Amino acid sequence: MRPQRVGVHRIDCRGPGDLSGVQALIDAGTLVPADIVAVMGKTEGNGCVNDHTREYASMAWSHLLAPHLGCTPAEAAQRVALVMSGGTEGVLSPHFTVFTRRWLEADAPARHGAPRLVIGTAHTRDFAPTEIGRMAQIEATAQAVREAMAQAGIQRVQDVHFVQVKCPLLTSTKVQKALAEQQEPATRDTYESMGYSRGASALGVALALEEVPAAKVGDAAVLRDWSLYSGRASASAGIELDHNVVIVLGEAPGAASPYRIAHTVMRDAVDAASVRTLLRECFAIDPDREGHDSDEALSGRLVNLLAKAESSPDGLVRGQRHTMLNDSDINATRHARAVVGGVLASIAGHTALYVSGGAEHQGPAGGGPVAAILHVEDAV
Amino acid sequence: MRPQRVGVHRIDCRGPGDLSGVQALIDAGTLVPADIVAVMGKTEGNGCVNDHTREYASMAWSHLLAPHLGCTPAEAAQRVALVMSGGTEGVLSPHFTVFTRRWLEADAPARHGAPRLVIGTAHTRDFAPTEIGRMAQIEATAQAVREAMAQAGIQRVQDVHFVQVKCPLLTSTKVQKALAEQQEPATRDTYESMGYSRGASALGVALALEEVPAAKVGDAAVLRDWSLYSGRASASAGIELDHNVVIVLGEAPGAASPYRIAHTVMRDAVDAASVRTLLRECFAIDPDREGHDSDEALSGRLVNLLAKAESSPDGLVRGQRHTMLNDSDINATRHARAVVGGVLASIAGHTALYVSGGAEHQGPAGGGPVAAILHVEDAV
Amino acid sequence: MRPQRVGVHRIDCRGPGDLSGVQALIDAGTLVPADIVAVMGKTEGNGCVNDHTREYASMAWSHLLAPHLGCTPAEAAQRVALVMSGGTEGVLSPHFTVFTRRWLEADAPARHGAPRLVIGTAHTRDFAPTEIGRMAQIEATAQAVREAMAQAGIQRVQDVHFVQVKCPLLTSTKVQKALAEQQEPATRDTYESMGYSRGASALGVALALEEVPAAKVGDAAVLRDWSLYSGRASASAGIELDHNVVIVLGEAPGAASPYRIAHTVMRDAVDAASVRTLLRECFAIDPDREGHDSDEALSGRLVNLLAKAESSPDGLVRGQRHTMLNDSDINATRHARAVVGGVLASIAGHTALYVSGGAEHQGPAGGGPVAAILHVEDAV
Amino acid sequence: MRPQRVGVHRIDCRGPGDLSGVQALIDAGTLVPADIVAVMGKTEGNGCVNDHTREYASMAWSHLLAPHLGCTPAEAAQRVALVMSGGTEGVLSPHFTVFTRRWLEADAPARHGAPRLVIGTAHTRDFAPTEIGRMAQIEATAQAVREAMAQAGIQRVQDVHFVQVKCPLLTSTKVQKALAEQQEPATRDTYESMGYSRGASALGVALALEEVPAAKVGDAAVLRDWSLYSGRASASAGIELDHNVVIVLGEAPGAASPYRIAHTVMRDAVDAASVRTLLRECFAIDPDREGHDSDEALSGRLVNLLAKAESSPDGLVRGQRHTMLNDSDINATRHARAVVGGVLASIAGHTALYVSGGAEHQGPAGGGPVAAILHVEDAV
Repeated sequence: MRPQRVGVHRIDCRGPGDLSGVQALIDAGTLVPADIVAVMGKTEGNGCVNDHTREYASMAWSHLLAPHLGCTPAEAAQRVALVMSGGTEGVLSPHFTVFTRRWLEADAPARHGAPRLVIGTAHTRDFAPTEIGRMAQIEATAQAVREAMAQAGIQRVQDVHFVQVKCPLLTSTKVQKALAEQQEPATRDTYESMGYSRGASALGVALALEEVPAAKVGDAAVLRDWSLYSGRASASAGIELDHNVVIVLGEAPGAASPYRIAHTVMRDAVDAASVRTLLRECFAIDPDREGHDSDEALSGRLVNLLAKAESSPDGLVRGQRHTMLNDSDINATRHARAVVGGVLASIAGHTALYVSGGAEHQGPAGGGPVAAILHVEDAV
Repeated sequence: MRPQRVGVHRIDCRGPGDLSGVQALIDAGTLVPADIVAVMGKTEGNGCVNDHTREYASMAWSHLLAPHLGCTPAEAAQRVALVMSGGTEGVLSPHFTVFTRRWLEADAPARHGAPRLVIGTAHTRDFAPTEIGRMAQIEATAQAVREAMAQAGIQRVQDVHFVQVKCPLLTSTKVQKALAEQQEPATRDTYESMGYSRGASALGVALALEEVPAAKVGDAAVLRDWSLYSGRASASAGIELDHNVVIVLGEAPGAASPYRIAHTVMRDAVDAASVRTLLRECFAIDPDREGHDSDEALSGRLVNLLAKAESSPDGLVRGQRHTMLNDSDINATRHARAVVGGVLASIAGHTALYVSGGAEHQGPAGGGPVAAILHVEDAV
Repeated sequence: MRPQRVGVHRIDCRGPGDLSGVQALIDAGTLVPADIVAVMGKTEGNGCVNDHTREYASMAWSHLLAPHLGCTPAEAAQRVALVMSGGTEGVLSPHFTVFTRRWLEADAPARHGAPRLVIGTAHTRDFAPTEIGRMAQIEATAQAVREAMAQAGIQRVQDVHFVQVKCPLLTSTKVQKALAEQQEPATRDTYESMGYSRGASALGVALALEEVPAAKVGDAAVLRDWSLYSGRASASAGIELDHNVVIVLGEAPGAASPYRIAHTVMRDAVDAASVRTLLRECFAIDPDREGHDSDEALSGRLVNLLAKAESSPDGLVRGQRHTMLNDSDINATRHARAVVGGVLASIAGHTALYVSGGAEHQGPAGGGPVAAILHVEDAV
Repeated sequence: MRPQRVGVHRIDCRGPGDLSGVQALIDAGTLVPADIVAVMGKTEGNGCVNDHTREYASMAWSHLLAPHLGCTPAEAAQRVALVMSGGTEGVLSPHFTVFTRRWLEADAPARHGAPRLVIGTAHTRDFAPTEIGRMAQIEATAQAVREAMAQAGIQRVQDVHFVQVKCPLLTSTKVQKALAEQQEPATRDTYESMGYSRGASALGVALALEEVPAAKVGDAAVLRDWSLYSGRASASAGIELDHNVVIVLGEAPGAASPYRIAHTVMRDAVDAASVRTLLRECFAIDPDREGHDSDEALSGRLVNLLAKAESSPDGLVRGQRHTMLNDSDINATRHARAVVGGVLASIAGHTALYVSGGAEHQGPAGGGPVAAILHVEDAV
């Protein structure tokens, strides 16, 4: 297999449709559009059902990419995995993380014996409304993860550090369609359907990564058996697609990328300790030793933290009542993103972090996976 | 002056009107209602103009206290400083912090040479709508701070570690009243008036604590000159009062309280480092050394953190754009409370923290004061 | 049976805890507290799960009534049916509609051969979390309606014009309790539970009023079979109670009340025509003939409109898409109350109307019942 | 001057970026892209500062039009007046109203002696942040109205029935920019700036249409002197532009359009009577006579109602308190749109209505202008 060289660009934006920062990098030759394999964006909508900033950013990206790829905007959105996660509550700063990949010659001298960042993508077929949140979605997702691992050149499941899934939700139109056909969807509530879709997708990842016993995974487990989870899955539901898109991030020896990736699991929304330990043990970075000035140094090296956030479903954090689940003004995922974004920014020293809401079966109940991408030395 | 013995009880609640936990402590003889001088509550409303949970909790407290104090509910609310701060976004857990005070004999043997927690309260006259957010409110607040210091037995301004102010806001009725009298209030916007009232109150504290030069303080400075601020003021605006209530917390030698208090200033909403330093340097607590289990130990000793939160008015945190000020669905103070609550809970290990929104002139722009109350050995 | 004389007072308030208008009527001797049997309030919360304005108003009423009734506040809340409906979106004006009742001598000369307003109340036992939204709640409600009809002296179901039910909801605490006991509640979503509770309550009314065939009513019909509904039920869910409270309003000959009541059903949220027809045909009032000035005359005679509002569950109004069900910022019931409140105010000429959200099985899907209470000549 | 033939298409959409309905009309030859002069869209965002659905719809339209007009998307947005008004609260249905115009031969036989619909557009220069909400914006708008009237062939101000203005707002970036240059904008609050921009734009229309005395119009009048207003202005603020776009709709004899237009002014948000009178007197339509079936007939003929909505700034509707201005969860303009949308739909019989929020100086305080576009016979 030919080795990869993966590039990662974190690019700020002034709005969901603002790609001027992206265009500047293209104009400067720093970013080659044809190399782009995935974009993970944080857009400033509500991150819930009627968040149109995700589609809006996707439309902007499609129109930007199309002429470079020599295809229509719709085709561009098929070729590049565009994952827009809505919601920048609290200090979170809207941005795009752009992943590029270039294949090197297979017989090129090995650049790094040490493992480096690799990426693979895949997607499932479209789902019927009644498949969302159920076994059909779980299995199709697991299969897509395996395909993306193969593309990435990752052979061992422990070398996968983050799996981003973009998945559909049920709109009221889809719910009506199912009911008209005398079929009951997993839920009739559009907001709730986002949780079902994320949960089934995460279980699909857990299945592929052998984190859960296959026998325990089924329709009845979704949003029910919280003991089943992936420590590396991140799923976002969006109104703009009918299938799942999967991006696998991991490490492989021989890759020529100047980046490393590692992951941990936050046990709850305020578990700063686990992320501090990750940085210390995997990357020899001590966030406490870094003062005001070196924050900037850290924020430069730490390209991004990719994390999931959710409000604890038992209504408690560290044994004390929280009010997120009873709040009819602000949805619980929005509260959770604000908290996790704040906690992670207090460690990372910057706020353009990928914190995505709704961590059903992604980490333990109330907690979630976190992956750190670190810039290391440039490839020789 | 007779020495004080101050008690601090942090009591959870199941809703703004739930005082069953308080009643249980009274029934057990742990809490003596006649000793209560102040209650600082976090209630689960929106913390903005139409947050009626503050009044609701105050009504519940008034009715609970009245028979114990032998007065009407309205009189009880005058005798005890009831400060209800709305908004428990994110992980924040609704609770009441109850301060009791008992005067000891003046010639009692000195309990502690070391300084211990003392408390003093005072209040201003009612303000006219046009006085809110202006010099009249600033000066009356400064005077009330001095009165409360005297009552607390604090002689040096550096021994004051936290000044809580509860202040009024402009409702549309008050705005109309002013306009009908041909007078322009500081703002016509009810939500914005909360900021003006908090800002003027904080400048009053800064004036009394000699944190700002008197010559620079005036109408024009309010919400304009962010270089003027108090590092110890905390102001909350509420619809339920027309005057300012002031609670001064500090330390004095000779006090018989089993508590200490110290403070720091967060430079921005994600400045965990300053709070970690405070705990380490003032109380010899290293939050990083404390593991999962000792979290609980810390959360027991650390009675509460009292903090202010605000979204940075220049639209940036650590140099990156935030979206709080342009969000027309969720007010900026709500975002900020969620962030600071999360960051502090990640340090304190518990979530029943007093994080109050709107830190105008309370700490630097985008940051805010934080005080820590620590339980130490019981008085001999 | 002794005839009733029912009084109806519509009283404005400045907030959920403001009973100064009520107190003024009591002081003037216009309102006798011991005569009060029911209060239907519109309070200015969000009308959803975390709307504490309902409890707050109830607490204020309990404390006001207790000394007059010679009982504790908790007992007062048992004796008087306090139904607080949250949500005054749009033009709706917060107010209380107070129903008094005095029993006349049985052999008193018949005041009115014509039917006049009568009232009856009843309540069910407390419900377990798993009973909410299911047959147990339906049957208990039907039984309570029959008891309230008997108390009101109404013998024919067609003489019932409005049945107000206050019912509980599932908080996350209740959901956890049921799950801990291995029992699945009707829904795990707190906001959604309000709909289940209202729906089951309404089917209970429909059952009692013989509006639906008993054979078709069961667990599976709740929020499923929209062909089953009551044209006179109005159910509001609140966090402050565990049982259903039922108020039956109707007409009976011989009653000495200076009020009449009639009802219609709006087929959708903008069906002004049916309400205009009701006023014209039952009360000989033509809202179109009434100009700007006579609006006030009408608003004086038309004591209140009692109505239910809901967003059409099929996502359409008059065949066109609405966005209420996909809105994750504002819950659908809030949109619907704003619309129906506006439409009814455009007919009634005043805005202190009782429009309550969530009309599941109350009127046809997307529509809802409306009752009009008209002041007629005073009893001789 | 050559006569116009104006076409009006009201087209539903499934989201802000869905132009499939538009494309279908183009494919069918019913709509000729090169004829389009203006699009007035209702998109399903919050209609406030961070409503990105307006930009999103504009981006979609620009990309659709560009190939037909033989220009870039940016140029298309300059040539066609794209006015997207956010906010479809309550029953309002997202849609686009597309205006086409074709110039006929000057010597063509007069089609209609009777006046028929004509349209004209114009735009101002870009405004500096400090010009927004002030005299510079007022005067530039008035000049643009005059230019658009001339283009439309309207000579008398009374023949203008609706003037739509799209105007900019202050983002926090713009506010910071002004402050950095030591200049104070009309307001520092981004949400409030939308009101200032709409208000100044409306006064510009009033000035051009001679509805207010020029001597009374100035900076101090904006959002202050509510006696000054236009009965035909409709202004919407959006984040996507820096200048004002003006669309004048009126009637002129000789136009060959199969449409008429007329206007009235609602005195408050629930003033159904004035709109009923308009339909009756101008178009001989009696909404009361129209039953369920003929509703559809009416909804077919009544192409659209164009209206402004606002919450009454004195806090009262028909003398009773409303809660819109003190609501910190839902902005007041959202409440008002829901109400006016409901009231108008109850008259028009359909819900795809153009109801735009924020009626500062557009109609009397709390009320707003309404224009009705009626399809009449096709041109001979």
